[in-house]
Amino acid sequence: MILDSISSPSDLKLLSLPDLSILCSELRNEIIRITSRNGGHLGSNLGAIELTVAAHFVFNCPIDRFIFDVGHQAYSHKLLTGRRKLMENLRELGGASGFPDPAESEFDHFIAGHASTSISAAVGIARARDLKKLTFRIVSILGDGSMSGGMIYEAMNNAAGLKDFVVILNDNQMSISESVGAMRTYLSRLMRSKKYLTLRKKVRNLLNSIPIKLSKCLEGIVRNSLAVIEGNNIFEELGFHYIGPVDGHNLQELIEVFQNVRDIANYKPVIIHAITQKGKGYMVAENDITKLHGLEKSPDQKYSDIFGKKIVELARQDERIVCITAAMKNGCGLVEFAKQFPERFFDVGIAEEHAVTFAAGLAMEGIKPFVCIYSTFLQRAFDQIYHDVILQDLCVRFVIDKAGFPGTDGKTHAGLYDIALFQHFEHITILSPSSKKDLEDFLEMMAADITHPIAIRFPKSPAFDHDRPVLEPGNSEILIISTGDMSNVIHRAIGHRRCKPTTWNVKSIKPFDFDTFISLAEIHQRILVLEEGVFGGVSNVILERLTTDGLSDILKKIKFINAGKEMILPSSREEQLNSIISRLSDAIN
Amino acid sequence: MILDSISSPSDLKLLSLPDLSILCSELRNEIIRITSRNGGHLGSNLGAIELTVAAHFVFNCPIDRFIFDVGHQAYSHKLLTGRRKLMENLRELGGASGFPDPAESEFDHFIAGHASTSISAAVGIARARDLKKLTFRIVSILGDGSMSGGMIYEAMNNAAGLKDFVVILNDNQMSISESVGAMRTYLSRLMRSKKYLTLRKKVRNLLNSIPIKLSKCLEGIVRNSLAVIEGNNIFEELGFHYIGPVDGHNLQELIEVFQNVRDIANYKPVIIHAITQKGKGYMVAENDITKLHGLEKSPDQKYSDIFGKKIVELARQDERIVCITAAMKNGCGLVEFAKQFPERFFDVGIAEEHAVTFAAGLAMEGIKPFVCIYSTFLQRAFDQIYHDVILQDLCVRFVIDKAGFPGTDGKTHAGLYDIALFQHFEHITILSPSSKKDLEDFLEMMAADITHPIAIRFPKSPAFDHDRPVLEPGNSEILIISTGDMSNVIHRAIGHRRCKPTTWNVKSIKPFDFDTFISLAEIHQRILVLEEGVFGGVSNVILERLTTDGLSDILKKIKFINAGKEMILPSSREEQLNSIISRLSDAIN
Repeated sequence: MILDSISSPSDLKLLSLPDLSILCSELRNEIIRITSRNGGHLGSNLGAIELTVAAHFVFNCPIDRFIFDVGHQAYSHKLLTGRRKLMENLRELGGASGFPDPAESEFDHFIAGHASTSISAAVGIARARDLKKLTFRIVSILGDGSMSGGMIYEAMNNAAGLKDFVVILNDNQMSISESVGAMRTYLSRLMRSKKYLTLRKKVRNLLNSIPIKLSKCLEGIVRNSLAVIEGNNIFEELGFHYIGPVDGHNLQELIEVFQNVRDIANYKPVIIHAITQKGKGYMVAENDITKLHGLEKSPDQKYSDIFGKKIVELARQDERIVCITAAMKNGCGLVEFAKQFPERFFDVGIAEEHAVTFAAGLAMEGIKPFVCIYSTFLQRAFDQIYHDVILQDLCVRFVIDKAGFPGTDGKTHAGLYDIALFQHFEHITILSPSSKKDLEDFLEMMAADITHPIAIRFPKSPAFDHDRPVLEPGNSEILIISTGDMSNVIHRAIGHRRCKPTTWNVKSIKPFDFDTFISLAEIHQRILVLEEGVFGGVSNVILERLTTDGLSDILKKIKFINAGKEMILPSSREEQLNSIISRLSDAIN
Repeated sequence: MILDSISSPSDLKLLSLPDLSILCSELRNEIIRITSRNGGHLGSNLGAIELTVAAHFVFNCPIDRFIFDVGHQAYSHKLLTGRRKLMENLRELGGASGFPDPAESEFDHFIAGHASTSISAAVGIARARDLKKLTFRIVSILGDGSMSGGMIYEAMNNAAGLKDFVVILNDNQMSISESVGAMRTYLSRLMRSKKYLTLRKKVRNLLNSIPIKLSKCLEGIVRNSLAVIEGNNIFEELGFHYIGPVDGHNLQELIEVFQNVRDIANYKPVIIHAITQKGKGYMVAENDITKLHGLEKSPDQKYSDIFGKKIVELARQDERIVCITAAMKNGCGLVEFAKQFPERFFDVGIAEEHAVTFAAGLAMEGIKPFVCIYSTFLQRAFDQIYHDVILQDLCVRFVIDKAGFPGTDGKTHAGLYDIALFQHFEHITILSPSSKKDLEDFLEMMAADITHPIAIRFPKSPAFDHDRPVLEPGNSEILIISTGDMSNVIHRAIGHRRCKPTTWNVKSIKPFDFDTFISLAEIHQRILVLEEGVFGGVSNVILERLTTDGLSDILKKIKFINAGKEMILPSSREEQLNSIISRLSDAIN
């Protein structure tokens, strides 16, 4: 294998074009082999192989900085930068992370788990370079899905005049589900005009051929219309030099374009619009878009699936119910809803801030919006939740998916802050189902004519099938309070101990049932509170009350067991759950 | 006064054009009179008078929804919608809020204290309207400063095809300090081409006059070039019909344009680009841009001023120091820094998310970025702080201004969450100065070669001039722990009581000095912790440790006094401080 001879990008630079082409095939096979075993993002990575190889052939990483956005495309980059061994344990403890990470390699220049950040980071790196009077290039590689996030525009707005600043837009014509919105339409229009540059040239020639000296008026018009034509591109209006569209799988074309750019990009930022095919070279993937984004190994029915089914049923009964997601249609179980209620389904793209304020607008007019976003991404909209939903006390329904431990996705995808963020707000309800039936019951509550905002959070685990009793009395020594999926794993810590703790499965985090809490607390010697989130969530709800009311007898016997502040390494969710359960076990002893 | 006869917009519709013009003058005088007494936003409001009058003349608010972004422009709207009496107490308890608020009037359709939200809210309202098969218009009025916020693009990306959807871009050619970036340049270019529409028409005629049937090739080119010319505008590329620029102070022109739009806006969204002059009609304001944004009554030296002076001194000694702000150059005291170090000063526009990730990029390359943003706006970047700064443990310096009670700006500007948000992160330092000297000392620490992220927070109060002792021993009954400016007001609660509490002024919230805390806690009977923020800030830092270590003796005697979860009404900061101090006073008794 040629790949065996590549321990860093400098080895790759010695290859001939035919050998580079073989290398691409080898990378393709490696990625398919690894992801079919370890899961991960197949489609985006297959689509970015030629781009990555050509970029490494032309630019000088790590002296030139490569910044991937969102990083779903970085597997071939990892395989080419000395991480083949790590990649054998992709998304496992001790293996490669599924995303770029400077802590993992000097070839990764910036972290990338959340989308639309690359140009901001690149502008920072470029300004630092210029202040330090260094010379290197900054190459950002971003998917078209990232173009729906507002940060990209904030960053482009601040990139004017930067030199040796290259953005490669990897346009596979879809984001996680499928790209949406006006920008997508616009990119497609650019794409269709394959002969865009030629046309521009021809029009210029045509206009030049008119005998302009015949009339002063005509001359002005022609000049102005030329200027208009020259600048007819959003990227160019924002100060970028636009090149494209180019074939993102044609190595020779890519190398030529990159070489040109490398040599001309010394006066303003350049954006190269490369058209790629998600899942390129993997027939099953190419034909099954929904499988392309991420591969998951578990076939069990998840909370998302239950949600997806129930929300369709509820929407049939109430036409005011609508669903909003931010490019997570599949991940949030909304495929069927989108099919049955296309006019009531809104995928706004990777744009969580807009999603929340948009929902606030809908709620203001009496619609019942369900905002379906993963916990880790909903963090992006904290201010919109506060300013647009909470301050106006609007009945937005938040469906917080993938809450808790992130499993193999690792630290960038940890969903540990949602309770801590939401519990700050006075009138919000926060629900935490621990079984299929809980979730269904709660969704019925949420679909009703409620009067305040409400949130439900659940993990990426398979849904627990049986209904779990709220209270299982034990002896008076220990009371264990747990929420959500934690209630389904505490038995691992309890085991077959003689001392059988009382367990209380709390389903409503807010409002919290303090009457039951106090009556249980009084008759137990110790209280352990277990939550799948950082300290400051359920713990804050309880402690605020206990300290305010001066319930010192309870305070002195309570202990909280939370997801730690330490970084979460990629490993299975089971392993992550075990780590918290072993701490519960220690606390029981 | 004509204004006396206007109790709702329907009265205004009966006026003649000359009377409308007089009405504008009267509104101008009213706004100058009120703001010169009560403070508030003068410039933006003076600039938006004709726009507002024309919009109320043509559209039917409150049936048609008016959405102001950010709401600095809404005073004349308030004066025209039955709130003249409330406006006499603008930004005072019981008076009108400085921003639109549906809780205040049926004519306010959405809250607006934070920028760039209007189109998202409008898209939500529009989709709700269409689902409910209603017919009304949605008119968003946004300042050009809001165009630097990414949410606007996220929302435009989702507005395609909406009918009766009008955006009025109030372009006064600056945001809070001055507008920055490529979009500003672009808007100016549109402005300069005053004859844009005429030109387009002429070019079309010119191209039509070429005998296109002579050559198939030529025909194609001409058609395509026409299409290119037609779509040469960013807004049009994103699916909006662009009209402008129009003179935003010419009532007749505005009314005509709005009437046309009202009648044609039934097939796609329209954006009207109106050019206005900030502070129009107020000579002092027109000539003094820095005073235009907001009027503040206090002449005292504030923490921002101290910061502004000290950072210049530090930057002279270390060329790696740079400052970043998000359209808060004046508010954060950065005018002098920007003047002295223009190449090290970055105003990124109203784009907090970008600001933080940009700073992370700078820090990644060894630069020392100070990110200067108000507490309430920094909430917008929680995810970027987590994902781009904390996960990579980058040495970004956060200067959190206007932290704590918002004073007359009211609930949308409350800076009560910053400690609660930042304390979640393991390696961050959080400092809280309570005097001028503290602030200067801490800034020196922050300018040093630190190894983790660091944040400093201070309120909008005048800086306390004398150095405050860390510890003032009292008797053993009560220990009062306070941070930041709270340390300067606790004496109001203590007064001349016989029982003199011990006071401990904590300057580093994180790391928190637990050794001192425990030794003090042990020798006092009660502990009161006072913080200018929500429960979950300093309280969380302390409680996490106390409950983890099982320090039940301390737990049972500790009590926290926080800013409440109830909404903060506009009133003076003094009054807000008094409310928390009176709770401290109650707790002491």
